[in-house]
Amino acid sequence: MITIPSESDGEQIHAISASTTVFNQEEVECVDELWQEYLSQGPQRSGYNFLVDKEAGRLLAYACYGPRALTDRTYDLYWIAVDPTARRGGVGRRLLAASEEAVRQLGGRLLVLETSGLPSYEATRNFYLATGYTLEATLKDFYKDGDDMVIFTKRL
Amino acid sequence: MITIPSESDGEQIHAISASTTVFNQEEVECVDELWQEYLSQGPQRSGYNFLVDKEAGRLLAYACYGPRALTDRTYDLYWIAVDPTARRGGVGRRLLAASEEAVRQLGGRLLVLETSGLPSYEATRNFYLATGYTLEATLKDFYKDGDDMVIFTKRL
Repeated sequence: MITIPSESDGEQIHAISASTTVFNQEEVECVDELWQEYLSQGPQRSGYNFLVDKEAGRLLAYACYGPRALTDRTYDLYWIAVDPTARRGGVGRRLLAASEEAVRQLGGRLLVLETSGLPSYEATRNFYLATGYTLEATLKDFYKDGDDMVIFTKRL
Repeated sequence: MITIPSESDGEQIHAISASTTVFNQEEVECVDELWQEYLSQGPQRSGYNFLVDKEAGRLLAYACYGPRALTDRTYDLYWIAVDPTARRGGVGRRLLAASEEAVRQLGGRLLVLETSGLPSYEATRNFYLATGYTLEATLKDFYKDGDDMVIFTKRL
């Protein structure tokens, strides 16, 4: 069931971040920080919203999104991650669609995703292309030399 | 003289933001917020650094930059603004060069600027092209419908 997480889901959110093969330590910590800000300040003040897919108490996936400052209804999808043992079966696709719908409900006009151009992110990039995103831009060597930022967008 | 600002420069920083014709109210407030975070937490913790050009107590221009999270030595130049009555004479160019040098001193590898694709920002975009930046990407309708984000980068 896709739902807004409760405070006790934080551990499983962290566990999913730590179990994906593509997140490095700094990225795992970044998700933890956004989660803490979300808990302590709420979505409105923190600017971070979380959605999870939870089946019988087990977290299968989480997403985090929020409005981009200084824009008219542009939202960032900061993170979306699926438990590696729950892959296939459309978990990611379902949570992505639910996140888009939630952003739409908030009045969102444009959703923006930033990801890596590394070969290890090829499945991720193909996932976004397959779910209706436009590969809008590539920033060469953005993350580090040899690691481009690839920006996808979708009109909502 | 280009220098690190003192707390009392905040008013003139605000005044420059408010006097430029291209900043809207939300953007003026954003600069004020970054300034407050810089004052209260310092550059290291806040992630925001300021430089100003100050002549005989009068602020001619300010710049604000900082490291981008989750990257290897990529820095954002968040803001650079020149008092409209101090334009021409190379004030902006001098402060931009000093900001680049400051980022280099911090170990910066890549400097990234985001600006608007609106006609009113044409002089700004030409300024970045004339100072060695590469127009790396355009995100259509990013700020609002009809207002693209234009991303410039420079290797340091």
